[in-house]
Amino acid sequence: MAAYVPSHELIEHIESGQTWAIARMITRAEAGATEAREAIGEIYRKAGRAHIIGITGVPGSGKSTLVNKLAEKLRQNGRTIAIVAIDPSSPYSGGSILGDRIRMADLVLDPGVFIRSMATRGAVGGMAHCALDVVDILDVAGFDTIIIETVGVGQDEVEIAHAAHTTVVVSAPGLGDEIQAIKAGILEIADIHVVSKCDRGDANRCLTDLKMMLKDGLGSSGIDHWHPPVIGISSYADEGFEALIEALAAHKDSSVNSQRREDIARFRLSKAAETLLLEEFRNFLDITASAQKLAARKGDPYSLALSLIEDFKNENT
Amino acid sequence: MAAYVPSHELIEHIESGQTWAIARMITRAEAGATEAREAIGEIYRKAGRAHIIGITGVPGSGKSTLVNKLAEKLRQNGRTIAIVAIDPSSPYSGGSILGDRIRMADLVLDPGVFIRSMATRGAVGGMAHCALDVVDILDVAGFDTIIIETVGVGQDEVEIAHAAHTTVVVSAPGLGDEIQAIKAGILEIADIHVVSKCDRGDANRCLTDLKMMLKDGLGSSGIDHWHPPVIGISSYADEGFEALIEALAAHKDSSVNSQRREDIARFRLSKAAETLLLEEFRNFLDITASAQKLAARKGDPYSLALSLIEDFKNENT
Repeated sequence: MAAYVPSHELIEHIESGQTWAIARMITRAEAGATEAREAIGEIYRKAGRAHIIGITGVPGSGKSTLVNKLAEKLRQNGRTIAIVAIDPSSPYSGGSILGDRIRMADLVLDPGVFIRSMATRGAVGGMAHCALDVVDILDVAGFDTIIIETVGVGQDEVEIAHAAHTTVVVSAPGLGDEIQAIKAGILEIADIHVVSKCDRGDANRCLTDLKMMLKDGLGSSGIDHWHPPVIGISSYADEGFEALIEALAAHKDSSVNSQRREDIARFRLSKAAETLLLEEFRNFLDITASAQKLAARKGDPYSLALSLIEDFKNENT
Repeated sequence: MAAYVPSHELIEHIESGQTWAIARMITRAEAGATEAREAIGEIYRKAGRAHIIGITGVPGSGKSTLVNKLAEKLRQNGRTIAIVAIDPSSPYSGGSILGDRIRMADLVLDPGVFIRSMATRGAVGGMAHCALDVVDILDVAGFDTIIIETVGVGQDEVEIAHAAHTTVVVSAPGLGDEIQAIKAGILEIADIHVVSKCDRGDANRCLTDLKMMLKDGLGSSGIDHWHPPVIGISSYADEGFEALIEALAAHKDSSVNSQRREDIARFRLSKAAETLLLEEFRNFLDITASAQKLAARKGDPYSLALSLIEDFKNENT
């Protein structure tokens, strides 16, 4: 296992669904090594078969439990499932916390289920394109459904959940004001709304409020031919999952999906281009002298920034 | 009031503390208009007197209440205060929710207090440098203390709170697992830790846990000569604020602060440069053809991105 496996061989093993090969390619993608990019490119061209589902929700919305249950149900229906869980973690030390994933021990022993946790990274846009590279690897490995799970609290996280064929936003009753404010911000990316914890007494009000907001045009995705349904779920009472699975299938088959695929490609291309451009810019630049000038208030951010950009472009001519 | 006031005149009015002039310049800064940049540059060079405090914490940590109380106390001590509150809001529609700020009605009538809510924006890095431009305007207007308040859940938000002379991270007892995971990620940027809601029975455990984590080296900022204190606060019982105000003053006077000023300049310069570079890149590029190729899997994100970058650089030679 320790021997180096060239990328083209690794891709063959991935295509035959070898877990070790999938894991190894994911590691290469995460490392962001330039030599892995050609392989990731080849994988991208081979991918495109899986149904990619983005699931996001505010902290405390019960989203991880829901993802686990949904994966179980889809698996029982004979589908193979991969989960890419984006962990909220430090932008500074890059530490990752597995949290709920430990509860998924039941699923872990099944080769038809693959779970990967990814820490959010410090690099601008870096996480988004890396997460989507990982999705492609899992797609080529033959998983039918790939779930990207993110906490809906940062722009990157929300964008990734939206870079899926179908986006599910999870709400829950009984959360604080500040959480509600964050929730309002992510409702509009939903193709499907889920209200979790529907075994609770205050769930009905949450369902009604959400339906009212959507009726008022708030939080609606604004896409023709698709009216985001609101589905009540109880992971505890094991209710509502059939309706969710049906809605996922209906959205997958809707005309919305082909437009979405183009939007995703556009998002992905700009993220990749911007990440590579900034990488080049950062590698090229030594900003120390300018930063010192700025700290001493002997220049201002805009003019110093503009002359750095000028230098960068001239260097490249 | 409706007549256009040239920037150099506006700056004079800002320096004499005119609220209307401050508000107008903030609007120009937020609009990101190119013609405002020269004025913002002049303001930057004049700024540097105020003590900038970043206050962040997970949702539900009671951070807004704490900021309000702290502002009140500092004001009673004769200081003038400005608060820049970064609101969690939609990256898509740009809507902003004022939330707790309404409770601050008492402060709003005092000319020694200025409060501004800013919505988080879609632009990469855009919010960070815009928020810091606003801080400079308030600095030049003569406010002694400027508080930047953010919800510590997105990378941008955390970075802004850290781009202050002194960063306060607010924790609270009794939050959920997922919130705790997010909290762990922001502890390390703290110069001062606050545990709020210390009137609660479970607050002691929260204080002890935090002190243990810091003792183990977790969540410590790693700066010599400064050991982030842990301060228990109860906004409800009005306790702990003197200790917080003392810690803020001690940190301001510590040697840490001069190094921090250089770090902030470096952060700010790179944010400004990256934002301007991406802006140029986005204005120049029409990625539609490449995105369609990508959607059809007739190319991969990396190679298509690289050729877009090539085009961009050649255009600029």
